[in-house]
Amino acid sequence: MKRIHSIVFDLYGTLFDVHSVMAACDRAFPGHGAAMSARWRQKQIEYTWLRCVMGDYRHFEDITEDALRYTCAELGLALAEDTLALLAAAYLGIAPHADAIPALTRLYQANIPMGIVSNGSRRSIDSVVGHAELGWAFKELISVEELEIFKPHAAVYALAEQRMRQPRENILFVSSNAWDAAAAGYFGFPTCWVNRHAAPFEWLGVAPSHTATDLLQLADWALASRQ
Amino acid sequence: MKRIHSIVFDLYGTLFDVHSVMAACDRAFPGHGAAMSARWRQKQIEYTWLRCVMGDYRHFEDITEDALRYTCAELGLALAEDTLALLAAAYLGIAPHADAIPALTRLYQANIPMGIVSNGSRRSIDSVVGHAELGWAFKELISVEELEIFKPHAAVYALAEQRMRQPRENILFVSSNAWDAAAAGYFGFPTCWVNRHAAPFEWLGVAPSHTATDLLQLADWALASRQ
Repeated sequence: MKRIHSIVFDLYGTLFDVHSVMAACDRAFPGHGAAMSARWRQKQIEYTWLRCVMGDYRHFEDITEDALRYTCAELGLALAEDTLALLAAAYLGIAPHADAIPALTRLYQANIPMGIVSNGSRRSIDSVVGHAELGWAFKELISVEELEIFKPHAAVYALAEQRMRQPRENILFVSSNAWDAAAAGYFGFPTCWVNRHAAPFEWLGVAPSHTATDLLQLADWALASRQ
Repeated sequence: MKRIHSIVFDLYGTLFDVHSVMAACDRAFPGHGAAMSARWRQKQIEYTWLRCVMGDYRHFEDITEDALRYTCAELGLALAEDTLALLAAAYLGIAPHADAIPALTRLYQANIPMGIVSNGSRRSIDSVVGHAELGWAFKELISVEELEIFKPHAAVYALAEQRMRQPRENILFVSSNAWDAAAAGYFGFPTCWVNRHAAPFEWLGVAPSHTATDLLQLADWALASRQ
């Protein structure tokens, strides 16, 4: 692999913990927080893929609401409109993973230009990053919104390449979503898969360039690769 | 809805029982058949969507093998190459649902032109339909193979419309996969969702024209709508 010039991160699941919403789910439906949060995330991702294949587009916030409606219907939980609004709002304020701030700090201090490319709308990304006061770390916050498609469509990775102003082989793409890392590698980025839960990688014909167990290990590896 | 002229069926899960492979899985990995079969099917579908969004294509048989490799890795089951070959072959001989033959017989006797449109390769469709000796029922067996994309891409539904030689509003599209019924409806087919397990419909912005609990109820409804 060439020397890493820039790093682009996925947002949901990679820098930020999508299961931050579990507590809010559990307050709304006691005892169901963990199951709701897992299923909600699964359906949210599925709906982005399905909308993309269908050739349809809705904002990520709307898809998040659709996925929550499905989840509650499947689990037999009656979802009032005010509860829907409350839980959907919780997604706009999800917390960074504990390792995100120290890892980003180290990479920032090494003067590595960083960006985020996310399926979230511009509003979602701004809200999540702003809520965590992490705006200082990123040169570019890149939303699929301007393309009206979702990852893992190649046009999204091409937009990230363009906005980072580097050829793709110099940009490390970091995701904890194996399908995202696989597609980014297929596009031509060197990739680091953040495998927090010792999962197998997805069988999509492309292996990650590197695998780290968390963002600190990723930072160590990225900094060492620049020596 | 207009008078139904023709009917197009999805294959996997709708006419044929994808969990036919459960017994073969259980023989290979005793006690794991049910979990394997469910996860294998889920990953198989996910990989068709992901390949389609990524702009990549592999034959359905290859994707079925990839999904099996992932499933065994996730469940911690060591998958030998001969077991992989055996289980992948089981997918080519899956059985029709018990209601498929009587329902198709009634619709055939009413002279309704019928077809199948499937994510399966030409070889997979021929094998599955041939194994069940159901070729007599269908005027058209339509594979995504010639397009090298997967459902729910609109081009697949457009191919079905073209091959059935009717405007889409005259063709009933039948699927037990809610995402498939939703996308077919978005394309413009009247749709019947075969909801065998009292599941909620997917929240993708399109409701099915009709919901039946099995294929016999679908046949009753389709025949009544032609009176």
